[in-house]
Amino acid sequence: MSKPTSPAPYKPEPITGYTEWLPEARLVEQQWMDHIRKVFESYGFCNIETPAVEEIEVLSAKGGDTEKEIYALRRLYDSPQDAEPRVALHYDLTVPMARYVAQHYNDLVFPFKRYQMQKVWRGERPQEGRFREFLQCDIDVIDNEDVSKSFDAELPIIVYEVLQGLGVGPFSINVNNRKILQGFYQGLGIEKITEAIRIADKFDKIGADGVRKSLVDQLQLPEDVAAKCVALAQIRTSDLGFVEQVRALGVQSELLDEGIEELRFVIDHMKDIPAGHIWADLSIARGLDYYTGTVYEGKLLDYPGYPSVCSGGRYENLVGSYLRKKLPGVGMSIGLTRIFAKLLKDGKLPVGPKSTTQLLVAFPQGANRDDVRRTAAHFRSRGVRVEAYHEDKKTPKQLQYASRKGIPYVLFPGADGAPHQVKTLATGEQVEVSADWLPG
Amino acid sequence: MSKPTSPAPYKPEPITGYTEWLPEARLVEQQWMDHIRKVFESYGFCNIETPAVEEIEVLSAKGGDTEKEIYALRRLYDSPQDAEPRVALHYDLTVPMARYVAQHYNDLVFPFKRYQMQKVWRGERPQEGRFREFLQCDIDVIDNEDVSKSFDAELPIIVYEVLQGLGVGPFSINVNNRKILQGFYQGLGIEKITEAIRIADKFDKIGADGVRKSLVDQLQLPEDVAAKCVALAQIRTSDLGFVEQVRALGVQSELLDEGIEELRFVIDHMKDIPAGHIWADLSIARGLDYYTGTVYEGKLLDYPGYPSVCSGGRYENLVGSYLRKKLPGVGMSIGLTRIFAKLLKDGKLPVGPKSTTQLLVAFPQGANRDDVRRTAAHFRSRGVRVEAYHEDKKTPKQLQYASRKGIPYVLFPGADGAPHQVKTLATGEQVEVSADWLPG
Repeated sequence: MSKPTSPAPYKPEPITGYTEWLPEARLVEQQWMDHIRKVFESYGFCNIETPAVEEIEVLSAKGGDTEKEIYALRRLYDSPQDAEPRVALHYDLTVPMARYVAQHYNDLVFPFKRYQMQKVWRGERPQEGRFREFLQCDIDVIDNEDVSKSFDAELPIIVYEVLQGLGVGPFSINVNNRKILQGFYQGLGIEKITEAIRIADKFDKIGADGVRKSLVDQLQLPEDVAAKCVALAQIRTSDLGFVEQVRALGVQSELLDEGIEELRFVIDHMKDIPAGHIWADLSIARGLDYYTGTVYEGKLLDYPGYPSVCSGGRYENLVGSYLRKKLPGVGMSIGLTRIFAKLLKDGKLPVGPKSTTQLLVAFPQGANRDDVRRTAAHFRSRGVRVEAYHEDKKTPKQLQYASRKGIPYVLFPGADGAPHQVKTLATGEQVEVSADWLPG
Repeated sequence: MSKPTSPAPYKPEPITGYTEWLPEARLVEQQWMDHIRKVFESYGFCNIETPAVEEIEVLSAKGGDTEKEIYALRRLYDSPQDAEPRVALHYDLTVPMARYVAQHYNDLVFPFKRYQMQKVWRGERPQEGRFREFLQCDIDVIDNEDVSKSFDAELPIIVYEVLQGLGVGPFSINVNNRKILQGFYQGLGIEKITEAIRIADKFDKIGADGVRKSLVDQLQLPEDVAAKCVALAQIRTSDLGFVEQVRALGVQSELLDEGIEELRFVIDHMKDIPAGHIWADLSIARGLDYYTGTVYEGKLLDYPGYPSVCSGGRYENLVGSYLRKKLPGVGMSIGLTRIFAKLLKDGKLPVGPKSTTQLLVAFPQGANRDDVRRTAAHFRSRGVRVEAYHEDKKTPKQLQYASRKGIPYVLFPGADGAPHQVKTLATGEQVEVSADWLPG
């Protein structure tokens, strides 16, 4: 039998833009995912998982800046003359969800409330908080003809509960409504509204002066019009106070009224959330074209320069385009990798033991292997996470293994029916226990 | 603001070789993954997750047939003149794990017992049981210099417990040892041992006669030698009986003795597993070059022609090659997608409701929205998975929603502190309940 050929010695390096964690950090990440799943399900969202790939036609139909970041798949040894790649990795979970709803339309119950927790891939330049592979946790609600505004209001409460439970430190979820921006700009007589929204969206990067200057320079808006746009973007209240402040700017339009009513509804719905977490923030625009109403954007307050950690909004026409139906939706996405990587790097995660093992059953020198295995199986059958040490090595070596792996208890099986001894590693205390013992 | 452009109406179709499930099936898949994780952790294995991609250099170093199935990543709008792709999707979880161990060597505790549950991708021709994207659940143990034979014996017990708990129907886990094959063939004076093993590996596809004929025709073995190889491959016992049967063939070699002892140890270790699940099966070879001792292969007995649903073995040189160290390992991989897809297609999965929601809080016509939301929040805070119906639609519509989604209880909130009413959908019974009520 041929031995595998040894490749030239080669020290693997991390691949730029891709993350992976040591077991002790991965354990925390798993707990995060468990928590998120639990919260999502506690609000009645069901899980779906879609393939990592979609047809390129599906991925590029939505347009936007992400298109140039799409990774297409091609078999390694296909030559460039072979057929063009037909599938590519998804760059978000919204487009796959839209395709899923269209494809399985007749088998779903509407309003369709789904969550999805998967990796997505973008070929962008890696930098702090931006990865080529990252984990997104999305909730969306899709419905026929109209999706209830009730969900616009419920989603940020769910995301609040997720972030609060994860212990990510202080955060704010900022909510706005595209109709406010669009209606306000219409009321001001601005023609290039999309361009104006794109500029306003840079508020937290270029500041009030930057926005004003861009509006004047790039869109040739009069100074007083640009000043009103900036004044709108500066409105930020944690209660319904934003309504009066917008009104005070004296701009009129039906669409503006509609937007104000929608945002008022959402903010009013949050009144039981402790103050300071959810804001009506009229600077929020979200660059993506497909949002048509409510928009969301969340930030970690300890890291004001860090990219947003959750985002989303309402879209009218993402799913239905496949089916000649109207299937609007509203959704939010939590950037799990973005949050996790930052807190991990900053030493702010409760990273503990390297495994969830509660008990190591030692293999005393000269002991019968069957006894060790059966003792471990006994405690395992009682719900304990147990490792049986694999060889009858010296006790200190076995204790060291438990200690390095973070296993709190070591049990020395009693020979021939004698009672077991359990050592608590944290204290060094060792006591006799019966087969009924359970780790504390 | 520009509306998104509607793409041409387009009915999305499933992509060949990729699977996705409806919410009710995905729920079962999640339960499967929870179960597998629980069993793996109950034996002290810790989880890791590696990126979907590895450097192509890492993926191709191991050789084998999978290389031509590797999917390389290239940005959609990079031209063929751009740099060659440097990364590709992993086709298994063993190679990424080996790279991970090499890269994080100093931060891991050995023996390193890890599990990994991730999608893998292979550009092969899709057929029943073979997918281009599928979920693998792997456990491996890697150690310095030598990995204890204890783990060769423990892994099939863990996989037995996984499969038993999943309720996959009757199955067998077949175990062999490459040293038996290699030593036996050496003892018979066969020179082209790798080729002979590759032929023997086809035993369950081409049968005893096919193997005998291939050995004679392709390797020019004498008939009596080929007959002994076939006789070896026909040995299959659920206890230690295989030892005598091999001895009875009269072939001698040190390596054969070693292999027999190793397999005896593994099979003896299983004696507490109900008979008929784990077999010493001397036909098992596993095509992959890198196995050097124990090999495993599991089958669903209801589907004898279906590909193996778990497999693995011991390898001496997969990790160490990166580090100029000897880091042997032993591992098993469960083909979750392969099992799940087959049982789902055959209607053998307990597919139930479309969500885990336990309770729908109805929104009676004319009720106060805050009351509905707060009632839902109250039960949610007590650990119940609750949906609050989103609008005050007519009761039958709300009941229909609950029924279609498989929600067992609907609660009608009492106005102004009046008691709630709960309807059990299965029976139609409706009773008055207090705020302390919990779904049964």
